[in-house]
Amino acid sequence: MDKEKLLDMFYKRRSIRKFKQDAVITDSEMDTILRAAMQAPSANNRQTWNFIVVDDRDKMKEITKVHAYSSMLRTATACIVVVGETPKEGGSVYWQQDCAAATENMLLAIANLGLGGVWLGVYPREERVQGIKRIFNIPADKTPLCVVAIGVPDEEKAMEDRFDPAKIYRNSM
Amino acid sequence: MDKEKLLDMFYKRRSIRKFKQDAVITDSEMDTILRAAMQAPSANNRQTWNFIVVDDRDKMKEITKVHAYSSMLRTATACIVVVGETPKEGGSVYWQQDCAAATENMLLAIANLGLGGVWLGVYPREERVQGIKRIFNIPADKTPLCVVAIGVPDEEKAMEDRFDPAKIYRNSM
Repeated sequence: MDKEKLLDMFYKRRSIRKFKQDAVITDSEMDTILRAAMQAPSANNRQTWNFIVVDDRDKMKEITKVHAYSSMLRTATACIVVVGETPKEGGSVYWQQDCAAATENMLLAIANLGLGGVWLGVYPREERVQGIKRIFNIPADKTPLCVVAIGVPDEEKAMEDRFDPAKIYRNSM
Repeated sequence: MDKEKLLDMFYKRRSIRKFKQDAVITDSEMDTILRAAMQAPSANNRQTWNFIVVDDRDKMKEITKVHAYSSMLRTATACIVVVGETPKEGGSVYWQQDCAAATENMLLAIANLGLGGVWLGVYPREERVQGIKRIFNIPADKTPLCVVAIGVPDEEKAMEDRFDPAKIYRNSM
């Protein structure tokens, strides 16, 4: 793939927090988002992730009570709770990284399908973790990493170049 | 972007561990990989990442002495050490997730440029963390999350479908 086309795919991903009400996400779109997620790399290919697809508005509103920055869940069409298999019961010490890679794949898929999404941090904020576990009956040995809101964008965000040469080192810090 | 083309981009990413010796990665390719990395989302857009681009073969060989699964660094053209800003000195509690998202962007860029790469886990394996910190003079308040080996593939890996419906839940676990 040529450089411009490739980078465009990453530039298209912006955090979208304004969604069209009553918009539809097709089964095919949701399937694509979940397939992208599961193609992420994971340590020893352990795939220490689970995905709760949430389209029950009451459950989405319940999240807003335990997560201060999730009010867009009142208008998002759906959200996906990413749940990791933590080391306690045979999960992986890399579960955060596995699940974060899967989440980034989802956000890239969402943006490049023409939909909008935003990553809502949950772990390691303990009050959010406990709240989300309660709402979704998540067992003790699993931990929600984040929630991804998904919908049809009701805002347009321009490309933002975040390249910062000061973050790059050569052969040593 | 249509569903098939979009998913193809994720399927193209496979862990490549066999590289052609003395192969070249162009400055333009490396630039694309780093630009992709920095377009990742990060909590509060804090961008808690740094990237050490390593093409000094001696340094790459030093990594193999502190990381048991990094022997491909003897033939990879380069590697990138991803270094997070940890909470200790004003970094983010989300640094692992930020850096993992940036790493996944790099791996997607690498694969879709026709190059090959593999994610080598470092954090939270303490002996690897300390070894990498020493080799690259990483200051106390920063932590290496992983190393990404990059080169020209000397193996072909077929697409592998990892979609697993058992990982998907609806509205509750």
